[in-house]
Amino acid sequence: MVNFEFHNPTKIIFGKNTISQIGKEISQHGFKNILLLAGHGSIKKNGVYETVIKSLQENNITVTEVWGIQSNPILSKVNEAIEIAKTKNVDAILAVGGGSVIDSAKSISAGYYLDNIWDAYESKVEIKQALPLFTILTISAAGSEMNKGAVLTNEKEQKKWSLVHPLLFPKLSIIDPSNQTSLPWNQTANGAIDALAHIMEFYFLGKQEETTLALNESLMRTIVKTTDKLKIDPTSYDQRANLAWAATLALNGISGSMLYGDWSSHQIEHAISALYPKVAHGTGLAIVFPAWITYVHQSNSEIFQRWAKNVWDSETVEDAVKKMKAKFTEWNVPISLSQLNIKEEELLKLSEIAFRKGTLGTLKELSQEDILKILKLAL
Amino acid sequence: MVNFEFHNPTKIIFGKNTISQIGKEISQHGFKNILLLAGHGSIKKNGVYETVIKSLQENNITVTEVWGIQSNPILSKVNEAIEIAKTKNVDAILAVGGGSVIDSAKSISAGYYLDNIWDAYESKVEIKQALPLFTILTISAAGSEMNKGAVLTNEKEQKKWSLVHPLLFPKLSIIDPSNQTSLPWNQTANGAIDALAHIMEFYFLGKQEETTLALNESLMRTIVKTTDKLKIDPTSYDQRANLAWAATLALNGISGSMLYGDWSSHQIEHAISALYPKVAHGTGLAIVFPAWITYVHQSNSEIFQRWAKNVWDSETVEDAVKKMKAKFTEWNVPISLSQLNIKEEELLKLSEIAFRKGTLGTLKELSQEDILKILKLAL
Repeated sequence: MVNFEFHNPTKIIFGKNTISQIGKEISQHGFKNILLLAGHGSIKKNGVYETVIKSLQENNITVTEVWGIQSNPILSKVNEAIEIAKTKNVDAILAVGGGSVIDSAKSISAGYYLDNIWDAYESKVEIKQALPLFTILTISAAGSEMNKGAVLTNEKEQKKWSLVHPLLFPKLSIIDPSNQTSLPWNQTANGAIDALAHIMEFYFLGKQEETTLALNESLMRTIVKTTDKLKIDPTSYDQRANLAWAATLALNGISGSMLYGDWSSHQIEHAISALYPKVAHGTGLAIVFPAWITYVHQSNSEIFQRWAKNVWDSETVEDAVKKMKAKFTEWNVPISLSQLNIKEEELLKLSEIAFRKGTLGTLKELSQEDILKILKLAL
Repeated sequence: MVNFEFHNPTKIIFGKNTISQIGKEISQHGFKNILLLAGHGSIKKNGVYETVIKSLQENNITVTEVWGIQSNPILSKVNEAIEIAKTKNVDAILAVGGGSVIDSAKSISAGYYLDNIWDAYESKVEIKQALPLFTILTISAAGSEMNKGAVLTNEKEQKKWSLVHPLLFPKLSIIDPSNQTSLPWNQTANGAIDALAHIMEFYFLGKQEETTLALNESLMRTIVKTTDKLKIDPTSYDQRANLAWAATLALNGISGSMLYGDWSSHQIEHAISALYPKVAHGTGLAIVFPAWITYVHQSNSEIFQRWAKNVWDSETVEDAVKKMKAKFTEWNVPISLSQLNIKEEELLKLSEIAFRKGTLGTLKELSQEDILKILKLAL
């Protein structure tokens, strides 16, 4: 069993009608002039924006708004926001949205003190300072609200890469699951798959880590169960809350304690959404992960069999993969590249992009040829 | 489902040969003159003390040692240590031991700034400052290494009470499970029962909190499973590590997220160990908890039946209680007050002590008469 560190200083406020606490919280930290980052306006429709602004105003906090963060967020937009943050001399950032908004906010918070934030993604400069970050989560999926990671796409270079640094932990994240009751189904399902995938990236490295393995199985089963219930009743507060908290725990350090992570499925998926930015991250993972499992499971067969039995009630890994794919289909999520109209002749290019940083994987090291084979399985 | 906050800033370093990092960690925080708190010398036998002192010396940290913290730690000893800490003008505290040592250290850290630390336990004064606390955990049980609570006995007044404050979170705790491979069996078993009890205090309040309920079931099953394995091979590093991490997660906020706690079993047990200080906390809980379950389970029968099925593979709560008691007996832990030579005529006094703060419980409010009935069930 490997040694590990666990340190997660993010404060979570979770529950109904909690968003109105944001102004007081930011004010108590001593910040008065913030950048508010958001997506394309759904928060204006569900009342979140109004609640946030009222709370900020009541606490005399000056706000500069930057809108238009897209899913699979891009570097040029982050750079634009950094310039605005500098001009306005803000002292903190408030992200109101899902993983894309929060990851962009993390990039802005570190980029504020760098000549070029992409250099940090390329590991060419070290992050030494970052603007304090607060978040209001509106889509449970990425787990970014309670971790130190961010993913960003350099759209010119077709690179979708990640950055990890302790200064990127949000100070505070507010999660009010009642704001997710109006989410479109595909976002709910993609979010659930993203959370499942985060747990699987750690889980399959397991051997003797009973505490974390059993805990991760309980989270995986819970995610499947609550998503099924949300398919029947998307407005259930309790099920939204269960899925939201499970998605946070899926990538806040708890699911990864005692274990290394693999992350090759994520990196292959990042190649897909770098080249085809309209593919949702969760959908990409729904396509890649079953193929990866099929390709690598013999490298640690005991744990894959345990997963088959304890999560999918299956006797074989093959059967569990089949059930997982059937579940994603039941959730109306594509499970093959063909369903996205990606053709076999495009796979080489995809494998090149995925391989750009070299060998992938921890459980099984993947060459570009291996990646190509996995992509073919995913076709 | 209730709203909740989660905020746990304690850093954990977990694994083999990690204790030697303590000097560097304390030094990086800028502290140079510390109080080292310990028990009765077991850390001199297993090499922990030597490793700690060497690491502190290498980092030029001045150390004042206070030894002799007993299990069920007492106020007079804490007051003695506070005086020493003041005389030496220490800037931080290092607790090396189990829950008793860490809880005493927390009391000292807050008591350093108060006229009388017991006033804080009596809720007569507010904690506004506390010395920074570092811990090296040598017995996994109480979970104090990663939470903001402490329990202390005012031995003159026969009060064993608890204190909770955010300033009591340790800055850092180092958990090296290899130091627990030489623990006496009764300490291992009592520790496991303490951890189980912490989870049960939250779990039985559950209704719709699937994420936390499933996670808590996985922790309970893991604790039973790993303790069984340790009974066969107490030297297994992997099983020590699994039990240690499960015990930390049992009371670091994760197991209690989405849920209230009940805590009446703990408070009844505290009366027992206040009156009979030689009774180990875990043993007291092994006696009280089954009786409490038997007395209250109809107040939330669905969750008790779920527990019976998912943790003990039982069709009824009665059968699950029977299995749990059989398990504790298999672990050589007493399951009745009679086994401790506590007589029926002493129960009234015990119920008075337990009731001193008034009604107990959240799931079911307990009058003194209820407490007496539970104690009779535990006889």
